[in-house]
Amino acid sequence: MELSEALYTTRAMRRVKPDPIPDDVIARIIDAAVRAPSGGNTQRWRFLIVTNHETKSRVQRLYSVGLAELNRTQYKATMDLIENGDPNDPEVIQARKTHRSATWLAENLASVPALLFAFGKPNGESSIYPALWSVQLAARAEGIGTALTTLLFKYYRPEMLEILGAPDDGVWEPFAMLSMGYPTGRWDVAKRQPAHEVSYQERWGEPVSWRVPNPLFSY
Amino acid sequence: MELSEALYTTRAMRRVKPDPIPDDVIARIIDAAVRAPSGGNTQRWRFLIVTNHETKSRVQRLYSVGLAELNRTQYKATMDLIENGDPNDPEVIQARKTHRSATWLAENLASVPALLFAFGKPNGESSIYPALWSVQLAARAEGIGTALTTLLFKYYRPEMLEILGAPDDGVWEPFAMLSMGYPTGRWDVAKRQPAHEVSYQERWGEPVSWRVPNPLFSY
Repeated sequence: MELSEALYTTRAMRRVKPDPIPDDVIARIIDAAVRAPSGGNTQRWRFLIVTNHETKSRVQRLYSVGLAELNRTQYKATMDLIENGDPNDPEVIQARKTHRSATWLAENLASVPALLFAFGKPNGESSIYPALWSVQLAARAEGIGTALTTLLFKYYRPEMLEILGAPDDGVWEPFAMLSMGYPTGRWDVAKRQPAHEVSYQERWGEPVSWRVPNPLFSY
Repeated sequence: MELSEALYTTRAMRRVKPDPIPDDVIARIIDAAVRAPSGGNTQRWRFLIVTNHETKSRVQRLYSVGLAELNRTQYKATMDLIENGDPNDPEVIQARKTHRSATWLAENLASVPALLFAFGKPNGESSIYPALWSVQLAARAEGIGTALTTLLFKYYRPEMLEILGAPDDGVWEPFAMLSMGYPTGRWDVAKRQPAHEVSYQERWGEPVSWRVPNPLFSY
């Protein structure tokens, strides 16, 4: 697959079929991920792939409770928008889509074929997230949909470490989970605020001298 | 460019020529970056591109002092390895290469044609670093080398905000700088610990059932 198509069409795909992902596909995806750069080239990452139903069910219970909590707090404005906004407003439509897809995951996580948990060194965000984005891009080229969530380790760190059998030793920090599977939906280019509207030139707040069609490529 | 080639051959490229990067190339790169997913699809990112010599010189002074400080502290073990290790040891060779390349940047940063500074929402690491990795991948396909550093905002946050004219308002958090330019060196696949050695299956510490040639692809 062309790089551009991967960069433009890889978006969070939470709804997936229960069909298992073959080992050689997982291997190719993780081999691509470890090529990512890391601070001081330390390569301090571990990828834990979970496919067994019992562990996934335990994770699902935490995810469901966590999502409900998020909907009451951090996502409250979005929830209000969904309930009270104009149902034809593109922003409301997008918010409802995202909410439904997250709800689907909360209700079906144990049937998602593979969950990938990423560990890195404490404060190693700038190294682990590029590698995880490589996982998502490489998965995209294999026809596999992924979605990243940080809520499990943010809200249920001790419970999650216990479920995964992972140490709490200050050496390895858990960062995020990717759900992975063959998607039921179709790939497309997600809507975004135009690049020139989120860019500045020379100093904060100074507009850039270029404009770009939004998006530049369609697939 | 094929996605695999981009994922395998995009590595930190600090030594670059002073040749400017055309606006349309910058525009394509940032348009690719904003396609990355972000938490709750909030798209809370700003990309500030600096090309003027005066600002770059001020950044260079901070980077030089910061790198020297890092070499005395966080990278001390690496510095000891470079000075006292076996000069034919692959690990020593790699450490020296990285050290020289960082030193080059400390001495030449003002001549690098473009610096990109990335801002996101506080604690927005999981959203900003995928977008920055997209910048690096899209730049790679344009023949542009990039290198990410977090040290400037880690050690000199107030000074950097002043230099860039950016607010310290709790809304926008500065995360990282990417240096960007046409590289003097060649692209290749960086050495990495094999994927199966950094992966676990079902539980922390459990070996995976697959192995993979390291690297799986060569370019």
